[in-house]
Amino acid sequence: MIINMRERATEAELQHVIDRVKEAGYQAHLTRGEERAIVAAVGSGGRRHELEALAAAPGVDGVVAIAQPFKLVSRQVKPHRTVVNVGGVQIGDGSFVVIAGPCSVESREQLFSTARAVKAGGARLLRGGAYKPRTSPYEFQGLGVEALWLLAEARQETGLPVVTEVMSTEDVDVICEHADLLQVGARNMQNFALLRRLAKVDKPVLLKRGPSASVKEWLLAAEYLVAGGNPNVVLCERGIKTFETETRNTLDLASIALARELTHLPVIADPSHGTGRPSLIAPMSRAAAALGADGLMVEVHPCPERALSDGPQSLDLPGFSQLMRRLSEPLRAVET
Amino acid sequence: MIINMRERATEAELQHVIDRVKEAGYQAHLTRGEERAIVAAVGSGGRRHELEALAAAPGVDGVVAIAQPFKLVSRQVKPHRTVVNVGGVQIGDGSFVVIAGPCSVESREQLFSTARAVKAGGARLLRGGAYKPRTSPYEFQGLGVEALWLLAEARQETGLPVVTEVMSTEDVDVICEHADLLQVGARNMQNFALLRRLAKVDKPVLLKRGPSASVKEWLLAAEYLVAGGNPNVVLCERGIKTFETETRNTLDLASIALARELTHLPVIADPSHGTGRPSLIAPMSRAAAALGADGLMVEVHPCPERALSDGPQSLDLPGFSQLMRRLSEPLRAVET
Amino acid sequence: MIINMRERATEAELQHVIDRVKEAGYQAHLTRGEERAIVAAVGSGGRRHELEALAAAPGVDGVVAIAQPFKLVSRQVKPHRTVVNVGGVQIGDGSFVVIAGPCSVESREQLFSTARAVKAGGARLLRGGAYKPRTSPYEFQGLGVEALWLLAEARQETGLPVVTEVMSTEDVDVICEHADLLQVGARNMQNFALLRRLAKVDKPVLLKRGPSASVKEWLLAAEYLVAGGNPNVVLCERGIKTFETETRNTLDLASIALARELTHLPVIADPSHGTGRPSLIAPMSRAAAALGADGLMVEVHPCPERALSDGPQSLDLPGFSQLMRRLSEPLRAVET
Amino acid sequence: MIINMRERATEAELQHVIDRVKEAGYQAHLTRGEERAIVAAVGSGGRRHELEALAAAPGVDGVVAIAQPFKLVSRQVKPHRTVVNVGGVQIGDGSFVVIAGPCSVESREQLFSTARAVKAGGARLLRGGAYKPRTSPYEFQGLGVEALWLLAEARQETGLPVVTEVMSTEDVDVICEHADLLQVGARNMQNFALLRRLAKVDKPVLLKRGPSASVKEWLLAAEYLVAGGNPNVVLCERGIKTFETETRNTLDLASIALARELTHLPVIADPSHGTGRPSLIAPMSRAAAALGADGLMVEVHPCPERALSDGPQSLDLPGFSQLMRRLSEPLRAVET
Repeated sequence: MIINMRERATEAELQHVIDRVKEAGYQAHLTRGEERAIVAAVGSGGRRHELEALAAAPGVDGVVAIAQPFKLVSRQVKPHRTVVNVGGVQIGDGSFVVIAGPCSVESREQLFSTARAVKAGGARLLRGGAYKPRTSPYEFQGLGVEALWLLAEARQETGLPVVTEVMSTEDVDVICEHADLLQVGARNMQNFALLRRLAKVDKPVLLKRGPSASVKEWLLAAEYLVAGGNPNVVLCERGIKTFETETRNTLDLASIALARELTHLPVIADPSHGTGRPSLIAPMSRAAAALGADGLMVEVHPCPERALSDGPQSLDLPGFSQLMRRLSEPLRAVET
Repeated sequence: MIINMRERATEAELQHVIDRVKEAGYQAHLTRGEERAIVAAVGSGGRRHELEALAAAPGVDGVVAIAQPFKLVSRQVKPHRTVVNVGGVQIGDGSFVVIAGPCSVESREQLFSTARAVKAGGARLLRGGAYKPRTSPYEFQGLGVEALWLLAEARQETGLPVVTEVMSTEDVDVICEHADLLQVGARNMQNFALLRRLAKVDKPVLLKRGPSASVKEWLLAAEYLVAGGNPNVVLCERGIKTFETETRNTLDLASIALARELTHLPVIADPSHGTGRPSLIAPMSRAAAALGADGLMVEVHPCPERALSDGPQSLDLPGFSQLMRRLSEPLRAVET
Repeated sequence: MIINMRERATEAELQHVIDRVKEAGYQAHLTRGEERAIVAAVGSGGRRHELEALAAAPGVDGVVAIAQPFKLVSRQVKPHRTVVNVGGVQIGDGSFVVIAGPCSVESREQLFSTARAVKAGGARLLRGGAYKPRTSPYEFQGLGVEALWLLAEARQETGLPVVTEVMSTEDVDVICEHADLLQVGARNMQNFALLRRLAKVDKPVLLKRGPSASVKEWLLAAEYLVAGGNPNVVLCERGIKTFETETRNTLDLASIALARELTHLPVIADPSHGTGRPSLIAPMSRAAAALGADGLMVEVHPCPERALSDGPQSLDLPGFSQLMRRLSEPLRAVET
Repeated sequence: MIINMRERATEAELQHVIDRVKEAGYQAHLTRGEERAIVAAVGSGGRRHELEALAAAPGVDGVVAIAQPFKLVSRQVKPHRTVVNVGGVQIGDGSFVVIAGPCSVESREQLFSTARAVKAGGARLLRGGAYKPRTSPYEFQGLGVEALWLLAEARQETGLPVVTEVMSTEDVDVICEHADLLQVGARNMQNFALLRRLAKVDKPVLLKRGPSASVKEWLLAAEYLVAGGNPNVVLCERGIKTFETETRNTLDLASIALARELTHLPVIADPSHGTGRPSLIAPMSRAAAALGADGLMVEVHPCPERALSDGPQSLDLPGFSQLMRRLSEPLRAVET
């Protein structure tokens, strides 16, 4: 940490900062410029938050962090990439894993026809929402545990491990019973009570990036999981909120490449939420594959115009099968 | 809802849309333009989501909602302003209620010295965090139930009702026992499990706007509370995420004026999180008062540079007292 | 400037950075931490861009600027507030100057009826667009020089000095002949050719903040004007682009308070573009007055629904007069 | 256009709107819902802005545009893709054209060594800034006409046509003499005086998307060029401003796929400005190629740490050659 003094800071203010840096458990290195002084806090065993709070001390202009705040998820701590095993499917091993299925589980028929189609198309995992976070209380909220049973049945039939969202600590146990990968939705990325609970389960977690979360905040949310005891985390970029309204969100593909630099955890893309437009799903999927993402999560519905949620951004069954054919070539092109 | 057909939509596609609109429980009114047709779905008893899903139907360019999606929180449904009673303090009655206190409860001494000072300065409610949402797992996470006891004691002494954040459904009962106003933090604005739980308590709720939530999404989150059975909701704008980094967030004061047009619920401002800079708290508080906000929530600490959280944006005790003096005049100027 | 070395930077890389810092005309102060080293470049006579480019040197993690990059517009250089004289009206002297008039000059009748009404209401300056920046080439582009003549006539009649936008270096001369304050529109804030030209005129300049310009970038645009020879600059915040679509832009009032901390130049607000909704103009104007802005620019039209541009955000004549009445009280409340 | 009436609009207000729609040259189709009425303006020969202004009429809630506002750049008007010839190099013909070179031309040696290297690596066009838009007036502003001479010489030697930025109408003639493709920078995307001037030259134009421009605004800026007489426009996405600060901008690759749906003009990506981090240039370039972009513009410098501008985001010569090798495979994978 660097503490920048104001231009007119007094010697007493400077000395106070130096004392406080030492009190916080660091060495204080002073550099005097022509117009202002800076104090570098050196060491790693101190209390970081006490340095941060010095931004409020008299004569201080600001505090700048030098080192990244996350630790266990960092590639500096663990240079080798983590491979997450989801019911036998490896994510992060250099292959490109496609997760597909309906936004919400609506009925046995809807789920099973989708599951068979995505399996045939080459998907490796089946997604399906049982508990649905919906912007309005008047929208379909999911079938709940009944959807979990259907998902488990669909896994039985197709052999595809299943991914479903967990919205509340209270649902964790029942979801763990039936699902193979527990998704934390974008709006819950900083639901720390939920993260702390999921740090204690023995199932892997799919952590979506929040719509206004920086890459740093996203990795810190993952740090909650890993530091709490669950090393099996897959990150998923699903678009951020920007001024652009032609697309539902702005899919920040650079954040995938950047996250893969900063962390050893696998990172996948969700072009369905990321664009909200079916016609953009294939090009963005190809782009994600070409830049080295570890996989894809995509929404598929047998009849999007009758979907109870997210129909307008879902691929239909032929659309999914076409996506998979068009994906094969950029995948061969990625250096592994 | 308006369904816009594409320019080259066929008659069959158009007819299909008309059939589906009727099937969803609406009348379909067709308008043919020179280049395209539009279908208006008329009525109020139908299944809105079925119209939305038509965006995925062949020949459809898009679906545009005309009416606002929220109901019970709308001023159209209830034109008179809601007054929320928080332990005897009225919010929304035309007065300007200041909520103040430390970001986190850290100790008896820290809390009590702050409580006395904010009471003396004119605050009507005491805030203090017991369960803290922190970006990093390595930061101070709050004293938990011990902080609740201290808050209850401080209320006893000062007579100020207390506000504290609830992060998880599991903490709702214990917080209800001790607090007068339950805060839903910005990062939990769309934690729907939490909202559903808080709809069932007999305490009022302070609902912060999420950092990337539109005004519409914010009001829909409030709709979860009201539709679920809790009409006592206070809204709080606390800054949104934008490209500007000189301030911690961008305090969107226009959203307060706009929310007060759209809803009958009271709306307050949080300039501490909204700016992240102590020097901006007074001017933005005066601005909030002048535009007709129902109150303010502000962080105060006896020694910001030693705060365990949010020190850099906290006012110290003399700073708070100065803020209150500078607030008195714009308040007199507001037409009520 | 601080140059942060990577954790695994070699001694040779570190030495190279130190050499380059000296070569750029600075002293290099080294601080070695446990995990990484930082080099502080000390001095003020060096070549700053050479330090910035070191971000590309081997072993360097990043370069962090400590001092603000603007100089002449800074309050550190000139602590006393600048008062800009616009045809006899002082902006920045502690009074609150209201600039009002139509978005575009459309006809003599439209301009004169507006001019008389805003004068009667208390406006001190008359605005009116002659050359209009329009998103689409098919929209009304302004009456050009004819509008300038009308504005000059209106000034003659009402005594109000006039403000109009300059879009191109080629129009500077003719506009200088007729106008009292030259407006640089938001989309031209970083049209550096235009800024350089306006630095050489003897008329004051109204510099609008760009829709995605940080406060820092805005002040640097002002620095172009002042460093180029024109000290008479008024800043105007008119809303930034964010994800919120209920308002046309997000009026960033905190940026006004912040800019007034950082610079000695006067700063005003434009709630018409800043919100795009007539109902929000009065509350946001009151807020701007309460936080200490130096004035306001607001669009007024005798018949907004027939305006050739920006009708939906214009006040009509009674609306303006009501705004002015409602403004008087928060203004008295501002400490001057 | 759809005009939505308010819920409590009177019959007189409704009739007024209908009259005004007809007066503007459209037919008015009325649909009465249970709670409100909507009026559709049908026809194409009317005055669109008069409909837009109706948002300000009494009883009107809002005006919603149905059709896209751009015409000549639209694929609906011209379904076949435009191929732009830049000094013999075709952009938009299904090939992937790489434009490379230094941010600024700094010296003959710097330019020529770069030009030779990018030619050897497979670039088809040479970029180099002569007139530089710089955030601060104290930064290097470009060599001006001297740089143009050097670029022309470099073209002579390498055979690569040259691209350079034009910042002002006053420089258009001299740049046209020496350059093959005239770049409009992101900050000038809505410098309409410049666009109107460039609509009259016989050289193609590279139009960068503004940092806060929607795709629609970007295409309307292109419409200025095409409607003004210059059909040879290449679009370039270079990143938008968002809250994320780890990257310089957020490269919005979906906007490329979307623009290619909406317009027949070629669209390329600029990952140098789009990310600001050399390590992200290769992955984002591969992604752009995989999604079907028409090419790439990338900054290359023989010694980035000594560059006078944008060094930190420039590739060095070996970095560029490596990029080109890694690009070849996704390119083969794109269906054309």
